[in-house]
Amino acid sequence: MKLTVLQNIMNANDQIAARNQALLEKNEVLAINIMSSPGAGKTTLLLETIRRLKNKTGIAVIEADIASTIDADKIIKEGTPALQINTGGQCHIDANMISNALAKLPLKEIDLLFIENVGNLICPADFRIGAQKSVMLLSVPEGDDKPYKYPLMFTTTDAIVVSKTDYLPLSDFNLAAFNKLVSGMNSKAKIFHVSAKTGDGMESWTAWLESLLKGS
Amino acid sequence: MKLTVLQNIMNANDQIAARNQALLEKNEVLAINIMSSPGAGKTTLLLETIRRLKNKTGIAVIEADIASTIDADKIIKEGTPALQINTGGQCHIDANMISNALAKLPLKEIDLLFIENVGNLICPADFRIGAQKSVMLLSVPEGDDKPYKYPLMFTTTDAIVVSKTDYLPLSDFNLAAFNKLVSGMNSKAKIFHVSAKTGDGMESWTAWLESLLKGS
Repeated sequence: MKLTVLQNIMNANDQIAARNQALLEKNEVLAINIMSSPGAGKTTLLLETIRRLKNKTGIAVIEADIASTIDADKIIKEGTPALQINTGGQCHIDANMISNALAKLPLKEIDLLFIENVGNLICPADFRIGAQKSVMLLSVPEGDDKPYKYPLMFTTTDAIVVSKTDYLPLSDFNLAAFNKLVSGMNSKAKIFHVSAKTGDGMESWTAWLESLLKGS
Repeated sequence: MKLTVLQNIMNANDQIAARNQALLEKNEVLAINIMSSPGAGKTTLLLETIRRLKNKTGIAVIEADIASTIDADKIIKEGTPALQINTGGQCHIDANMISNALAKLPLKEIDLLFIENVGNLICPADFRIGAQKSVMLLSVPEGDDKPYKYPLMFTTTDAIVVSKTDYLPLSDFNLAAFNKLVSGMNSKAKIFHVSAKTGDGMESWTAWLESLLKGS
């Protein structure tokens, strides 16, 4: 008797992620998975990004947290459609949560969909959700040694945003050394230095997003 | 036929955690599990705490990260015994990692053992490791809304250290509102406001550690 081994090429999560991506592309939606530690400023960056792009682009946001609706409330207050996912203890978004959220969004009206992941530098890097691009934030107060400690996140994202640059005068974060380190780990990643509070660096960040939209 | 259900009262991790705690107590070691987001200042707080207590107390440190030995190197440089655990992608320490580390430490010479968990506000809250006390840090730049988003961590720790208070002048973190919120969620938790950089608040933090040592 011959033993047949069926290899499962994609796990269940990745299958759903691939379906999510196909649905997004069918509707010409560019989805960006935004990841960082807790408190690195994801929501504040999104709010400022939305203010700068909403007159040109249809934007929506999916917010994810263990608990609470604080972040989605802030986005909705700015007049942008937002859905909150509560993962109930799970440390990352999975593809099925996004599949359920996409079913509730008016995809035909959306060009740019931000998916703000759970605040965590570890678990989200392991789970595809179907977004075409991924971006991680590292805030200046967290320190410039984080690429050594959380290598998977830094080597797999399409862009790295150093956020809260307004804290640089109080910090020993070395921007030049950081750029060199992450360029070595992930040569394709775009690197941005941004303060959503002062507006510094926002233009090159939003210009990159617009270039992606034109390319998609 | 009668069906017998064997209930597994403790899972494997909790069994090993209980053994770790028994070993610590037999050797009169007080172990403290230190948890926070990445970059909240755990290692910096430990370095300053060690400088203030090392002449009075036998101290050792177990450091945990996904990768790298950066943190253990810093502790050893200060003349304090330190072991580095690399979890290799796992987002928290488990009891078995601590069991292996305890076997390598001179427990008879140690009064106070700090266990610096992986930078993460979610997973470490779910895993007992055998430490008698747990402490979480929340750094000022992360923002005062984190108890709503990561309730398990805030409701289960023995002490909450608001770290990096030297960033308060640049932040809208409301210390009074934060204290009120977390006292409501976790009335037994001690709350400290500390800047390891300027030394502000270090005395009440180290006094609390010393009171635990006397009580143990």
